[in-house]
Amino acid sequence: MAEEMVTFDEFKRMKLVVGTVTSVEPHPNADKLYVMKVNLGGEERQLVAGIKPNYEPQELDGKQVVVVANLQPARLRGIESNGMLLAAQFDDDVVVISPERPVPPGAKVL
Amino acid sequence: MAEEMVTFDEFKRMKLVVGTVTSVEPHPNADKLYVMKVNLGGEERQLVAGIKPNYEPQELDGKQVVVVANLQPARLRGIESNGMLLAAQFDDDVVVISPERPVPPGAKVL
Repeated sequence: MAEEMVTFDEFKRMKLVVGTVTSVEPHPNADKLYVMKVNLGGEERQLVAGIKPNYEPQELDGKQVVVVANLQPARLRGIESNGMLLAAQFDDDVVVISPERPVPPGAKVL
Repeated sequence: MAEEMVTFDEFKRMKLVVGTVTSVEPHPNADKLYVMKVNLGGEERQLVAGIKPNYEPQELDGKQVVVVANLQPARLRGIESNGMLLAAQFDDDVVVISPERPVPPGAKVL
């Protein structure tokens, strides 16, 4: 196996948590991006996600997603993103990752 | 926010991939562990997961899961585990994380 290994301690530095999508708006300056709000339990997070070609807003609203909650903030085309939503990617398709049944928002993923 | 941030480059060191569960057996030496085989596309992986109190084998067989594929191998009660299955955890419950519809095994998650 040529790929580089990571330790469990490195993995644990990532804070992966379940969030419930509460708002999905088109990014004002980018065709493929949404500006989303996600309830992470104690807080609501804004993040920018490049899944507009693959999902309608109403497919995402209310859905539970998995977020990298401690990713360094980034500005994407002028809008701040505080976290990253996880999705499976293959060919040109993107499929959101979810708990297989509803869990409390903010639940840790590990 | 007091928690430690991670960079996108750090996040990308984790190889998160979708796998399809092909086999679930009780661990011979541990009450709470399963020894599972997961098809990651080009290869079948053996991993040990502590979800026996929460899932029957037939609930897992055939399910798609998300695996940290480049985690350093570990021996858990004498059985080698090559990767970690992601699950949401809260109270005493554990809920597996899946793509919201089937994807090709081995699809990257990011």
